[in-house]
Amino acid sequence: MRAMAEDVVTMEKIVSLCKRRGIIFPSSEIYGGIGSSYDYGHYGVLLKNNVKAQWWRALLQERDDVVALDSAIIQHPRTWEASGHIAGFTDPLVDCRHCKRRYRADKLEDGQCGEKPSKCPGQGPNCDLTEARNFNLMFQTTVGPVQDEGSTVYLRPETAQGIFLNFRHYLQFSRKKPPFGIAQVGKSFRNEITPGNFVFRMREFEQMEMEFFVPPAEAERWHEYWKQARYDWYVRLGIRSDHLRLRAHEADELSHYSSATSDVEYLYPIGWQELEGVANRGDFDLTQHAKYSNQNLEYVDTASGERYLPYVIEPAAGADRATLAFLCDAYDEDQIDGETRTVLRLHPLLAPVKAAVLPLVKKDGQPELAREIVAQLRERMQVEYDEGGAIGRRYRRQDEIGTPWSITVDHQSLEDATVTVRDRDSLQQQRVAIASLADELEARLRAPWSSPKLS
Amino acid sequence: MRAMAEDVVTMEKIVSLCKRRGIIFPSSEIYGGIGSSYDYGHYGVLLKNNVKAQWWRALLQERDDVVALDSAIIQHPRTWEASGHIAGFTDPLVDCRHCKRRYRADKLEDGQCGEKPSKCPGQGPNCDLTEARNFNLMFQTTVGPVQDEGSTVYLRPETAQGIFLNFRHYLQFSRKKPPFGIAQVGKSFRNEITPGNFVFRMREFEQMEMEFFVPPAEAERWHEYWKQARYDWYVRLGIRSDHLRLRAHEADELSHYSSATSDVEYLYPIGWQELEGVANRGDFDLTQHAKYSNQNLEYVDTASGERYLPYVIEPAAGADRATLAFLCDAYDEDQIDGETRTVLRLHPLLAPVKAAVLPLVKKDGQPELAREIVAQLRERMQVEYDEGGAIGRRYRRQDEIGTPWSITVDHQSLEDATVTVRDRDSLQQQRVAIASLADELEARLRAPWSSPKLS
Repeated sequence: MRAMAEDVVTMEKIVSLCKRRGIIFPSSEIYGGIGSSYDYGHYGVLLKNNVKAQWWRALLQERDDVVALDSAIIQHPRTWEASGHIAGFTDPLVDCRHCKRRYRADKLEDGQCGEKPSKCPGQGPNCDLTEARNFNLMFQTTVGPVQDEGSTVYLRPETAQGIFLNFRHYLQFSRKKPPFGIAQVGKSFRNEITPGNFVFRMREFEQMEMEFFVPPAEAERWHEYWKQARYDWYVRLGIRSDHLRLRAHEADELSHYSSATSDVEYLYPIGWQELEGVANRGDFDLTQHAKYSNQNLEYVDTASGERYLPYVIEPAAGADRATLAFLCDAYDEDQIDGETRTVLRLHPLLAPVKAAVLPLVKKDGQPELAREIVAQLRERMQVEYDEGGAIGRRYRRQDEIGTPWSITVDHQSLEDATVTVRDRDSLQQQRVAIASLADELEARLRAPWSSPKLS
Repeated sequence: MRAMAEDVVTMEKIVSLCKRRGIIFPSSEIYGGIGSSYDYGHYGVLLKNNVKAQWWRALLQERDDVVALDSAIIQHPRTWEASGHIAGFTDPLVDCRHCKRRYRADKLEDGQCGEKPSKCPGQGPNCDLTEARNFNLMFQTTVGPVQDEGSTVYLRPETAQGIFLNFRHYLQFSRKKPPFGIAQVGKSFRNEITPGNFVFRMREFEQMEMEFFVPPAEAERWHEYWKQARYDWYVRLGIRSDHLRLRAHEADELSHYSSATSDVEYLYPIGWQELEGVANRGDFDLTQHAKYSNQNLEYVDTASGERYLPYVIEPAAGADRATLAFLCDAYDEDQIDGETRTVLRLHPLLAPVKAAVLPLVKKDGQPELAREIVAQLRERMQVEYDEGGAIGRRYRRQDEIGTPWSITVDHQSLEDATVTVRDRDSLQQQRVAIASLADELEARLRAPWSSPKLS
């Protein structure tokens, strides 16, 4: 299952770049870290915010049939009875009576014993495993000052259920009727036994989910539509199509709520893995919540009198997985002037910084003019000013974080009010009038783009 | 303390509008709700996203000296020992032995007994209160499959500590030195005993915090600077200055970490209340984390050789409180054609929808042309298409959600390719060529703005 193309970057290189440039790094490191938890640094926040903004843009701004929601992380606990999470969102665990640790019964080979040099679990001479028991993956806490049973709540393991809870509301006030979608971005939490692979699987992660409610007869057609639309979104934002595939789940892979699911898979450094799932959830969720809440969640068409429980098509993406995929796919190394250059060939819309403004020398009025240009550009986009070190070194710094354009202020700039615009990928420099620079860069930002790694 | 200006809207009107138009509504309502928790609907998400985007813009995009962070909600538990939250982030609680409920000892008059008609606590004939005990406001959960003491973690009660934990990282890779700031937006959680007043105080809320690290001798000057800068931000985004004030904390109000704090206060429907705190935290936090982590968190100036623990100025805003303040301040009612109109006079940059495109009649090619205009505009901004009902009624719908411009396609539009642009506040209509409509609206969006309620 770990087919690896020659042109796939290693996870080590990504992790190293992310740490070196403060894109993503281990959380709480000052206290020795907290397993599989990561913080996003300056460029990481900018990158991930851009990923989320492009998702909102495609789902919301460019369409008429999707509306937004931001529901609470801590919902009424009955939500998770209805959804099946309290009963079924579990991993099978075994205890080792010897080393006192717990392991996933279905992943014993991944376990590591705390009691060296024994090879517990299962393999060490002292191993003494219990029967497997089901361990619920939801984080549990108590709300309010009384810690009785009634106050037990859960951190949501998915954003989706908040959408189903509000479906009836949306029928009332959003003036939408099926087919229409409700989209949400936000944190979810799963007490995974074996998180790992950098930000690919974390206990705390951010989802970008949409539930698209359709007349039952149209479910298959919309499922096909959203599989393709979501695949295309990644390609449009620069993921190479040979690193992307749609894979339909086998019958025995399907979740309990799903009648059909296809994953958009990306060729990560760890092999082909789920980037986004696009499921046909049928009417499972609305049926469950109707039952547990005693409310009628049917849609009634006032014109035809038709009433039905809509089916739901769910494209569920991970913001962290998407960010990681964009980082991996953009990562490149080439040779310039006999030196290896690391460059992130990110789509300009995703690049944390759109333009860097660099005075060639730190004198002759160049820094002052560069500052004026910065002031002009930052009205429209995220820019950076850098006057430290040789110009080649400053270009490299920007290449590493994927800045598409470096603006250099030189001697000529003071004379004719032009600057050079260096393209991160083609390395070509073009002189542009300072007066039209912001418009020029905005036009480039809006232009269609495809990965230069394919050309 | 509840000074109320005549022109302050009531909370009932805000709550009612928010529910009616799906801006903000109670969470998990299908299951009877979960106390003091709210979900943001379509227009609420768009509004709050705009508030956060403007905060990032002012703190990050328009400056050179602030960088971004997004740290995990679940941090290493030692964080909260160092910060003082485990020992001191508590409210005093009493139990009533009769009705079995808990109350804040310092807010007994707010308590409501579950045992009607008794007026417990304190007032009912059956009341039997225990001594006050301290109750920690942090939500607690366990990470990993073993529920022993070592795996107890907390949901962060503030985003600030994630910044202090990463301070040393940022010195290394951000190429910044004091004075510089680290900014973060994200959810925090406090198990408040008495949340309330709509989204003003919730157990789950979103913060926009920045820690600005300065040489100790410059702390007072920067404190003054940030108080003013944050006050100005609200005014620039349309809050009336007579609804806003800076109030310095008295000595007995100060938090344990603060040597001086001023609140930006807003005249909410519930009276003057904290909108944002701007604190001088001194070197309290870095001192604590240096001690608990055994790491040296001093900044060393490589040029001068000077070394010191920076002081910290913290502007800490609530995204929900800010959103509520913008909603309250924008709310207005006026008379049009003998009818009362509800209108949100939001700053155009904050308005959920920038423009609505409305065919005057549902025939003669007007809907088709309106659709073309929608397609053109949505490349640049959030727009809405509406063909349902009388034009006046459609205007009112947009007024209620604060859409600054309504674009009407009429008979003449088909002839000369112009449309009317109706201004939400002045109600004036202006004919604009369709070809230049997007540019015209973008120019209006970027223009300075002040509340028409003051004119």
